[in-house]
This record gives sequence, structure tokens and C-alpha cells, in this order.
Amino acid sequence: MSSSTKPVLMNQQEIEAIQKELGKDSLMGKSLKELILDTDKFMALGIDVPGHSPAGGYAHNKHTANAKYIDQAGRLFLITGEEKYAQFTADLITGYADKYLGMDFHEQKNTNPPGRFFHQMLNEHVWMLFVGLGYSCISAWLSEEQRQHIITKLFEPMLEVATVKYDHDFDRIHNHGVWAVAGVAAIGAAIGQEKYIDLSIHGLLNDDVTGGFLAQISKLFAPSGYYIEGPYYHRYAIRPLCLLAEITQRYRPELDIFNFKGQVIGKTIQAMLSSAYPNGVFPALNDASKTMGYSDEGVVTAVSLYAKHYPEDKNIYGIAKLQGRLWVSGCGAALSESYEAQDNVELPCLPSVELNEGPNGDRGAQAFIRSQNANGDISQVVMAYGQHGMGHGNFDGLGMTFFNNNQEVLREYGYGRWVNVEHKFGGRYLDENKSYARQTIAHNLVTVDEKCQNDFNVKLADSKHCEPHFFTGNAPIQAVSAFARDYYPGVDQQRSVLLVEHETLEHPLLVDLFRLDSEASHQYDYAIQYSGQIIRTNSDVKQHSTLNTLGSDFGYQHIWNEAQGAADADTTLVTWLQGESFYTWLSASSSDETLFFTRTGANDPDFNLRSETSLVLRRQAKDSLFASVVETHGFFDESTEVCNGATGKFTAVNVIGYSDAATVVEIIGDDVSLLVMVNNSPDVTEQTQATAEFGGVTYSWTGYFAVEPKA
Amino acid sequence: MSSSTKPVLMNQQEIEAIQKELGKDSLMGKSLKELILDTDKFMALGIDVPGHSPAGGYAHNKHTANAKYIDQAGRLFLITGEEKYAQFTADLITGYADKYLGMDFHEQKNTNPPGRFFHQMLNEHVWMLFVGLGYSCISAWLSEEQRQHIITKLFEPMLEVATVKYDHDFDRIHNHGVWAVAGVAAIGAAIGQEKYIDLSIHGLLNDDVTGGFLAQISKLFAPSGYYIEGPYYHRYAIRPLCLLAEITQRYRPELDIFNFKGQVIGKTIQAMLSSAYPNGVFPALNDASKTMGYSDEGVVTAVSLYAKHYPEDKNIYGIAKLQGRLWVSGCGAALSESYEAQDNVELPCLPSVELNEGPNGDRGAQAFIRSQNANGDISQVVMAYGQHGMGHGNFDGLGMTFFNNNQEVLREYGYGRWVNVEHKFGGRYLDENKSYARQTIAHNLVTVDEKCQNDFNVKLADSKHCEPHFFTGNAPIQAVSAFARDYYPGVDQQRSVLLVEHETLEHPLLVDLFRLDSEASHQYDYAIQYSGQIIRTNSDVKQHSTLNTLGSDFGYQHIWNEAQGAADADTTLVTWLQGESFYTWLSASSSDETLFFTRTGANDPDFNLRSETSLVLRRQAKDSLFASVVETHGFFDESTEVCNGATGKFTAVNVIGYSDAATVVEIIGDDVSLLVMVNNSPDVTEQTQATAEFGGVTYSWTGYFAVEPKA
Repeated sequence: MSSSTKPVLMNQQEIEAIQKELGKDSLMGKSLKELILDTDKFMALGIDVPGHSPAGGYAHNKHTANAKYIDQAGRLFLITGEEKYAQFTADLITGYADKYLGMDFHEQKNTNPPGRFFHQMLNEHVWMLFVGLGYSCISAWLSEEQRQHIITKLFEPMLEVATVKYDHDFDRIHNHGVWAVAGVAAIGAAIGQEKYIDLSIHGLLNDDVTGGFLAQISKLFAPSGYYIEGPYYHRYAIRPLCLLAEITQRYRPELDIFNFKGQVIGKTIQAMLSSAYPNGVFPALNDASKTMGYSDEGVVTAVSLYAKHYPEDKNIYGIAKLQGRLWVSGCGAALSESYEAQDNVELPCLPSVELNEGPNGDRGAQAFIRSQNANGDISQVVMAYGQHGMGHGNFDGLGMTFFNNNQEVLREYGYGRWVNVEHKFGGRYLDENKSYARQTIAHNLVTVDEKCQNDFNVKLADSKHCEPHFFTGNAPIQAVSAFARDYYPGVDQQRSVLLVEHETLEHPLLVDLFRLDSEASHQYDYAIQYSGQIIRTNSDVKQHSTLNTLGSDFGYQHIWNEAQGAADADTTLVTWLQGESFYTWLSASSSDETLFFTRTGANDPDFNLRSETSLVLRRQAKDSLFASVVETHGFFDESTEVCNGATGKFTAVNVIGYSDAATVVEIIGDDVSLLVMVNNSPDVTEQTQATAEFGGVTYSWTGYFAVEPKA
Repeated sequence: MSSSTKPVLMNQQEIEAIQKELGKDSLMGKSLKELILDTDKFMALGIDVPGHSPAGGYAHNKHTANAKYIDQAGRLFLITGEEKYAQFTADLITGYADKYLGMDFHEQKNTNPPGRFFHQMLNEHVWMLFVGLGYSCISAWLSEEQRQHIITKLFEPMLEVATVKYDHDFDRIHNHGVWAVAGVAAIGAAIGQEKYIDLSIHGLLNDDVTGGFLAQISKLFAPSGYYIEGPYYHRYAIRPLCLLAEITQRYRPELDIFNFKGQVIGKTIQAMLSSAYPNGVFPALNDASKTMGYSDEGVVTAVSLYAKHYPEDKNIYGIAKLQGRLWVSGCGAALSESYEAQDNVELPCLPSVELNEGPNGDRGAQAFIRSQNANGDISQVVMAYGQHGMGHGNFDGLGMTFFNNNQEVLREYGYGRWVNVEHKFGGRYLDENKSYARQTIAHNLVTVDEKCQNDFNVKLADSKHCEPHFFTGNAPIQAVSAFARDYYPGVDQQRSVLLVEHETLEHPLLVDLFRLDSEASHQYDYAIQYSGQIIRTNSDVKQHSTLNTLGSDFGYQHIWNEAQGAADADTTLVTWLQGESFYTWLSASSSDETLFFTRTGANDPDFNLRSETSLVLRRQAKDSLFASVVETHGFFDESTEVCNGATGKFTAVNVIGYSDAATVVEIIGDDVSLLVMVNNSPDVTEQTQATAEFGGVTYSWTGYFAVEPKA
């Protein structure tokens, strides 16, 4: 039987569109130049098809890289016509075909079944996708004998393993499942065995429900496009999703995949992009690295694909500018053409957005609020009040991070993992991911009684979700509010966060009103994860001469209690310096509360944790309101020895009153003082007229909240 | 009397040379564009001549900035002809003239006498220099009445204060003294009272010995051009030095200042430049920030001046490229012209150099060894074996730092200071500068008996210096060796450091042989200051469940003992990850030695210290050799999840033998093993034939040292 010799994702018209950018300064021209340099550098190392190694070891890394460069060299053969690329691709794939059936499966190490090249099939699926695509680019260049060798000794046995031996793992509704179906579809298409395309699209049962690509994209995302595990996993799933969407469009155009289910593919790409910080790095929602972002290949692929298949969105050009490159493909050619046609491409300030969660969009949400100042700097608040996020979920309902001046200010620790570093448990998740990074105290919110939300029980946590209260994404005052009920037994929580622009302030003021409601008395620890040098505090803090941990469980065992002192009788102030900016945190307090300065690293025998710092304001109470602000101020540059504005404008936060109905606080500053009023009723609307009486004074406003100048 | 109206440092020809670069993409054009943007931004804030504030406070910063922009705006008036610059300069200086005599002197806070604008005259001298130069640019534009107001109410009284009231502080031989004479000369020249130029050049006694510019430049620098306080203070002194040299050349050309004393000015500029790391940042020798470097205005001024007055040096262009700008002046115009005439300017790899210390060059030296690999990355060793450095000296004789991959690897803490941050003791040196940063244990060397070198006695330390042993700055094997005798009573020390290039290594191997010689037994703590995440160790280290300090004095009281364990019986190994690189330290050891993992921050009630980590290998011995290597290996990029080479090549360092005569060690690796032999005799020459017998084996070599492949 004669095999297919058609490139899966490159037709002649696309090849020519890419070819004409060779050597040009366009986005495609630059991306192509990079691709050639990168591929040539790898090819210069010579061919090596190694055996087994643990994750992060040489063989693991080499197998991964070989697949990547088979795809790249295959494309470059079609684009440049240079035979060296075909030869390299052919030699490498043939090397794999020579070895595959002679290699044993790895020993099984986790729930993921093992492959022959990799310790888990997930990596083997990834490998299949890129090798299938790369092979298809050179298949016409191969002899029929060479093709048959590769097909019978490598591709067909691999398809058998993926769809028969491990059928239970093949087309499940999970981000790993997308790699599986995409890998199988790519090889199926490459060798002209289209039944594998159909299995991939419709599932082994051909029901579009239990598995397959259509079921996956129907179920994995909320109506908003948000992916339950967060952006770090979203961008991992988006790459096979985009590649399989392209395959589907070419081989099964009748499915009209890019308009499938209300354009779910376009919507989920937009949702993923809209979660990023202004520097293009994703907030580490759930288990995630601190550095994953727009520069990831998956995101680059998604942006090119979006530009080709969906209506023009100028922010897509801005994102492509941040990325500085594109996916060298027909999609990329389309992006490059429209990008170069723009008069001017600005770095984007994406609109503020609330992304709902759950299959019906009714299981909480994630808020992304942005405000750009006159100097172009973007402040961003991220607040998590959606679902738990399954096995990778962090126990941080109502958690919040804050970003400006090109740095994360109220910080997320990220995962406890040194990805692909073999000496760190083979690069896998470390014990400290569970014992610290996912615990409530590791985040910017309140920990009750030194315990974790939902008792660190994933099943319990997955059964709950937070309740959105209100979201307003319009300047000058943007705000979000949500409830977390019974995340701690008998304690209800409400967090309202406002980002307030004001003419006297260079950066917007972050206002954080964290309210707890309980019949019984509890210990409440309001924590802020910061980075940098403490500049001053008005708390009478004493450093400990011997360091002990802040507690014994739920993450506290990993935290050194470095210093503590009585909180200020009125407003506790701490200023720190991070990079070139000062930040001052002011929180309404009383002198029977305690302020702690902490650092991670305790009970960490293998030095797995990074050394990070936090502030913890502790009080004992039933109902309570933590009313805080974070002011961004000043400038410090050690190298030029310039320092300005080390003292902030604000001096006090006073709680006027709070109840189930309303919260009123005043924020006092040198030349700006504000009265902040929030309606706490779950059924508030934009039209609700509210009045609240505290201390004999009546406060009135319309809608969710009001911020007024204070006389 | 009619006053001078001549610009001190800008003649018509120079003005025209600068003018023709306006709007061009040349180095001058870009610098000019920046200067205009920067100046216009400051002018937009409006005129403000405030009163007093502490160092780092608003008024302090404003007075400093006002002087800077008076100089800049003055120059821009001559270059652009725009009257707004003259008006701004005139208004600001007149504002000062209106206020000066009505202002009280600050209260005296340190040994530096106070000024009227600033808490110390040093800052007032700086102010005088820039205001004098700026004034001279617009004096012709002013009315005679305006000039007389400024001269009689501001400049003449200031000159009186500088040269009469504080005559003892005026022309001393010190880096501060250079600012004093330059400030007085600039104002004297600006108002045509040339006696002040002569006082500045020849000293109050007109003897060229006790004071004045000529005496300063004759005495401040070693024959090598090195400045005793180190590069941080050198670059501070270099700016007034260059400006006053320019004034001298114009007003007293007969002195031929640029050829004075064997071209001491050119030589000292070269010495300063040659101390920097490849990224242009100065090593923090003695009290110094970690970020001062080529981008400093003083260095920018010096590079422009060198280009104009000294023979062509291609490295100067490379340094200017790193700086990205120049001094907008006649000197800068000369630099720009020759820079733009180059076909191609490469970033420089400066030659390895040993800079001698002391007036006669016989009080030790500082070594700067560089090696550039095939990828262009430069490794650099800095070893300090010169003088103590007076009041700013650190107690780190034989101290060493190491730099590659664009980061400092074996690190210097730098000063204990948050410069110009008012809440940090007015931005001045903090107590922790003495109690930690200057102590021996804060550095990369051996601390004996938990004490400081020379008992932290500045006078005692200034009376001593290290003894150079040998220096070889030629690849592939570069080396330096020196002795420190009696820095601890009864203990002599020798350190030999080799930087070894080898075909199997991507980066050169650092070999460190630290030998101690004593009749009595001592505790030796060999410390390495590192940054990053510990990846693995073969030491059986246990983390402490409660943290205590490593000791009680001499800096130890600031160090937390985080973890400790018995050293390996043969070779102790620690790998850490800094940025994108892995570093493995291997040190010959025995199991009765102890390895500590430490972190700074103890006994630091005001959070003045940064949190930094070190390794300490402790042993009890009389004579002893710490034989270590640092291997640079691998690559990690979290954002792309790529990790390679996390395991280094080397596995053991074995001491074959050591004595007063010789040291022989072997370094064992996977595919490279080396035998290192060093002649320890102080009178060794390049021709010396050495033999040493250890364990019945005879080792022979010629010269200072030999590195041979080991079979």
C-alpha cells in the first residue's frame, strides 16, 4: 500500500506566503530567521537517539528536543527547499524507527502510564504530535521503503499503544487528553490513515461525549473561556488544541471547527490571553511557575491561529509585539501580513474582565482588573473566587495578587517544583508543593485558626466555589467583591477590592476590605506576601534572637517567625522597597493585635523552597474586618543614587463600621482623603439605594459601592 | 567691576561640533536627545529652591538636582540657542542668590563640616562645581545687574566659606578634596576671579604638596593608577578630577595637565575602567554599592575625556557602547566622531591586569583576571591583596570574587547602606556596615577563630598590606597568588587562584588553593557567599528546627545557622542554581569538618541587611589547605522549561600535598582530570625549576605553577 506524502499543515500557498518573507524585517521574517538559527544550531550537534533516563535527565531532554526539531526542520525543508533539513528529519525519525520496538517501556512511576521513550505517555503524545507533523513535511522526499520502515516500525505500533494498550488514557476530558488526541491525529493524518483523525475528533466510542476533541473543547472550558486549572495549564493545553483545530479544519472542514460551539476556540484563546499581567507573564493561579507567559510556544501558536481565523482585534497585534515572534505557519503568515499593515502597534492594556467558571458559568469567577497611568504603567489586580482547580488547585478562595511597575507586588509563591531539574525529584512536583505552596497561608488572604481552607481536602474543595458579589471594570474606580461561605467551618468571608485612580496619585490606590463573619471566636491571620527590603514600620516590632516556625502545620511549619510586635493602636504601617518602587501597606488595627514578619524555608531539608517573605497581621475575633490599602510611591535607583518619595501620602485607615449590610471606611492622606462605602448585600444591583448608620452618622450611596473625597 | 561672561568649558568650535550632531543617530546625537528630554522633564516641574532637609530628604534631593540641571540647561542654551534654558538657569541661580545668606548652616552631624544648603560641605562643593559651570554658559545672556547679584550674594560668600571658613577642609589629599578644589575653581573661572583657579590647582599654601589639584593627583593614586578606596570612590573622585583637568587645560595650558606626572590622569582612568566586571558594574571592593558602574556620570565623563586627550584605544569605544552615551561636551564630540568612524564596535573583553597599590606601587595589588569563552561569555576573577582602604576598607585581605554568565557568582555583600533613602539613617552608612559588611566573614575567604582580620582595627589594618606572589594574565591558564602575613596573630595565609580553560569545558574552571600556616591550632572557616537555590549536596546536612546565630561577634552575630552537617570524607560537593546557570563547588574535606548553610539577617532590628546566603566549611587545624574548585555548568530556563547539564563534570578534589615550598592537588572529572602544582616560595620566578615530593612521588615543573592533564 502506498502511503500519504502530503504535509499535514502546510499547503503550497502557505509555503509561498512564508517564503516571500525570508530575509525581511517583518514579524514572519524575524521569526523565520530565529527558527533557522535555532534549528541549525541543534542540527550541528549531530543525530542522537538515546535510551531511557528519568524526567529531566539527558535522554528525556534529548527525546523532547528531537521531536521539536523534527517539526522545525520539516517545516524548514518545505520553506527553504534545502535538503539538509529533509536529511536531518529523515535520519532522526529513522533512528527512532530502528529503535522503538526494541525499547522496553519505562517502569511506571505515577498514575500516568509509561511510554517507551518517556517515563509517562503524556510526553510520548507530545512527541507524536511534533514528529507526525515533521514527518509529513518530508514524506514526499523519502523513498517508499523509508516511509514503510517508519510507518510499520514506529508510527503504527505507537498508534496501537496510544489507542488500544492505553485506551483508558487516550481521549479523556483533561488537558493531557488534548495532547493524546492531537498526537494520534497528527500521525494518522501524516500516514494517510484517517480513521485516527476521526477517533481523535469524536473519541473511541464515536459519541462526542465520553472523549475526543469535540467533547474536550465542549467541556474543558467555562462559557467565559476560562480553564479550570488556570492559565499555566491552559497554555499547555492550548498548543495541541490549536494544532488539532488546524488539522480538523483541513481534514474535516464540514465541522467548521473555528465556529464550533459559539467559537469556543477563539473565546478560550481570548480568556487565556486576558489573564496575563502587563508584562505577558501569567499570574500563578493554582500550581504554576512564576515565569510562564506569552512567550510560550503554545501562546505563540494560539495568537497566530486567532489572527487567521477570527475577526481583527488590535490587542492581538500588541500581544504579538510583546512576543516578538509568531508561529511559522500559514496562520503566522496571516498574522504577519495584517501586523505589518498596521501604522503603529502599541503594547496592549487589555480591558478589565471577569471570567466566569464552571460548565454553566455559575461556579464563581476570576477577576482581572487593569488601570493604566499617565506614564503608561499598568496596575493589575487578580482575584480568585471561582472553583478550586482539581488536583492542581490551591486553597486560596478569595486570594488576590497585585502587579505594577513591571513586577508582582502582592505575590503568589507559585508551585513547589523545579521543573525538569533532575536532582529535584526528577523535576516533578515536590512534597513542599502540598505542604506549603498550595496552603492558604502561602497566599494573600486570611487564614483562620492556622488551618487551611477546606482542610486541604481536594474533594471537599472541588465541591464548593466562591460567590461573585459585584464586578465593575470601568475607571477611575474599579472594584470586585465576592463571598466564600463555609470554606472554614462556621466562618463566612467576603472580600471587596477596589483599584482607585486619583489625580493626586501617580499609581492607583489598592483598597482591600476583607470581612469575616462567625458566631465563634477565631484566630484570623491576614497575610501579605511581599518581596524586597523593609524600609520602616510604626509597629513596635522586635526581631527574635532565636527563630522558630510560625506554627506546626498547614504551611506554617515552613515559615520562620523572624520578628513580631504589637500592631499600632490605630493604623499599622509597613513600607518596603521592591526594585525601584516603594510600597506602603496601611491596615486599620488595634494594639492587641500582632504583626509578624516571616520568611519561608523552615522544615525544608532538601532546600526545595525559595526564601520568600510575608507580613501577617493576627487578631482574635468573631466578626472582623481587615481594612487595608497598598500605596505605590517614590523611586529608588541605587546605581544613580537617586531616591524620591520614600514616604507615602497616606497615614491612616479607619473603620467607620461594617455589618452584613455595608462596610464604611475612611482613608486619610496628606492631600487626599477618601470615604469608601460598600454594599455587602448579596442582592445589590447598580441601582440599589443604600443607607448605613454607624456611630450616629448616616451614609448613603447608590449601587455596589461609592468612593468619595473626605472633607 | 565687569564680570566674566565666558563659558568655562565650551568654546565656539566645541559648541558647533555638538550642534551638528543634533537629531543624528550618532553617539553624540543620542546623548544630546537624552539630555534634552531629561532636562525638559525637570524644567516642567517648575522652579523650587527649598530650605533644609536631612540627607535623602526632599530639600537635599532638590538642591542636588537643581545643580545638575543648572549645568545641563546651561549647556543646552549654548547648543540649542533656546532662551528657555537660559531663563530656567538664571531663575534658579537667582533663587539661590536670593536665599543663600539668609539660610543658617546645618547642624553639624559628622566630621564633615555643614553647609547652608546641605548637611555637609562635600555636597555643597559638588553643587558649586555644577552651578559654576552652568552659570558660565548663560552669564553673557544675563544683565550685569543679575550677574552682580549672583556673584555678591551667592558665589563670593560661598568661595569665602570654602576657602577661609573651612580652609582645613578645602584642599586635603582625599577624594572629597577633589570636589572642593574643582567646585572653587569652576566658580572662580566662571566669575573671572582666577586666583581661585590657582588656589585650587596649587593649594592654599601654593606649595603643590600640602594641597591642591596637582598634589592630589600626584598622591591619590598608585603608579598603576589604582585608587586606595576602590572603584566606587574612584568613580566619585574621577568626575571633579576630569572637570578640573579640563578647566586647568583651558586656563593654565602651560601645566600640560594631561601629560602631568607620566600621564597620571589617563592612567588612573584606565585603571578604574579595568576593574569593572564584563557588564560594566564595578566589583564592590571596600564599602561600595553593588550597582555602581560604567553608567555613572563620572565614568561617562572620564571616557569622553580619555578619548579626546589620549591615544586611541579600541576598548574605549567598546566601553562607550556599553554606556550607550557620552558627556555632551567638546570631549564627547571628539569621542563621538572617532566612535562613528569605526567599522564595528565590539563589547570589550579587557585584558587581565594586576594593579599595584601604594604611592610606590609596593603595598600589594589588586588582580583582575578575565577569560572569554567561545560563546563570548567572560569569566572574571577579582582578588584583593593590596592595602586596607582606610575608613572605608573591608577586612578582606586575600578576598576574592568571581563573575560569569552576566552575574556575580562568588559574591561581595557590598556596603551596609541604602543610599539616599531617608528612612534608613538619612541614607548614610548603617551600623551594620561595620558590624557585618566590612567583617572578614562577610567575604569569600577564611575567617580564623571567628574573629576579624586585624581585629577590625582600621589603624592596624592600614599599617599592613598583602604581598604579591605571582600573577599570570595569559590564557589558557591564568593565575594569581599572594600572602597575608599576620593578619591574624601567628597565622600566615597564602591564596593561589587559577582560572583554567579546557577544551572539554564551556566555562573555565576556578581553582582556589587557600593555605594557612600556624604553630598553634585554630578554627578555620572557609566561606563562600553564593546566591540562588541549593540543588544538591553530598554532605549529610541537617536543617535546624530552631535557628541560632553562627556566632556572637565579628559579623557572626548577623548570620543565621540554617543547616549543618559533617563534610564528606573526601570531597564535599554543593551545587546551586543562580539565574540560568548551575555552579558546583567541590572542596577537599574530611568527615570531622563541618559544612554550614547560612543566611544573613540576625540581630538586625531595623531590617537593614539584605537576606544573603553563604556556605562555610569549618575545620580545626594548624597548617591547612582549603583546596576547592567552582565549576560552571548547564542551563535552566523555567519559562521554557528547559534544563540541561544540572550535573557537573568534576567529582573530586584531592590534596596530594602542601608545604611552604609547594602545593600539589588533583582534580578528578568525568572526561577531564587535572594535576595542579604551585610553587609557594616567595622568590619563585618564571624560570624556577621546582620539585616536590609527596607520598613518595616526585612532582617537577618550571615556573610559578603548572596544570597538567592527569592520566
